[in-house]
Amino acid sequence: MTSPLPAYEAPVPVLALGDVLLISLQGELHDGTAEQLQQDISRRVAGSAATGVVIDVSGVEIVDSFLGRIIAEIAAAVRLLAARTVLCGMRPAVAITLVELGLTLPGLVTTLDVDRAFDVLRRSDPGRAEEGT
Amino acid sequence: MTSPLPAYEAPVPVLALGDVLLISLQGELHDGTAEQLQQDISRRVAGSAATGVVIDVSGVEIVDSFLGRIIAEIAAAVRLLAARTVLCGMRPAVAITLVELGLTLPGLVTTLDVDRAFDVLRRSDPGRAEEGT
Repeated sequence: MTSPLPAYEAPVPVLALGDVLLISLQGELHDGTAEQLQQDISRRVAGSAATGVVIDVSGVEIVDSFLGRIIAEIAAAVRLLAARTVLCGMRPAVAITLVELGLTLPGLVTTLDVDRAFDVLRRSDPGRAEEGT
Repeated sequence: MTSPLPAYEAPVPVLALGDVLLISLQGELHDGTAEQLQQDISRRVAGSAATGVVIDVSGVEIVDSFLGRIIAEIAAAVRLLAARTVLCGMRPAVAITLVELGLTLPGLVTTLDVDRAFDVLRRSDPGRAEEGT
């Protein structure tokens, strides 16, 4: 019961808005696409002046442990690259599923929508190389 | 030769960023999803203070006359609702295909990326009810 043809999955676009990278996750994220996205985000953060990454998951209706892990790993890599990740737009059902899976995403900032995510990044932008006080 | 099960397509998320709505189109857009998106955008523009709509198509690798028509129709509806549409992130191959299809999207402002799309909307924001001079 393998799927007849491994549907080609286009990479998820990483949009640059000033010094923030915005990713709008939609539908299901396949293994290859998720790996590609991790690499794309890390490269873009490292190669640009990006100080923040906003991942909107309002287009995600079903979440599994894989997606939870991917988001946590992206956030960890982004932090190592001196930027911050804000997760936004999570549906209540997705939040409940994540908790049931034991994925409470500790240390990850979440907001209700993209606007608030940008606010969070703007309010406390510590700069890239130095920490604000 | 109908498809065995009509794969459920989640709606495309419409992200509000200040008074601009951002839509990141990814992969293929199915008939139902496109119709839903048209309605979502029109409702959101009418029901909010949105003065602009940015449609990023950098995640779209294959374009057909259907998608071209949908984008033109969205832009037309948005204009009637006193807001502006900027299309951005188009791949060169997609641009060539659109021209070959005779869809040159007249009257639609395009930019290379999301940042420039926001710049265009910011530079010449005519306000909602009145035209600037």
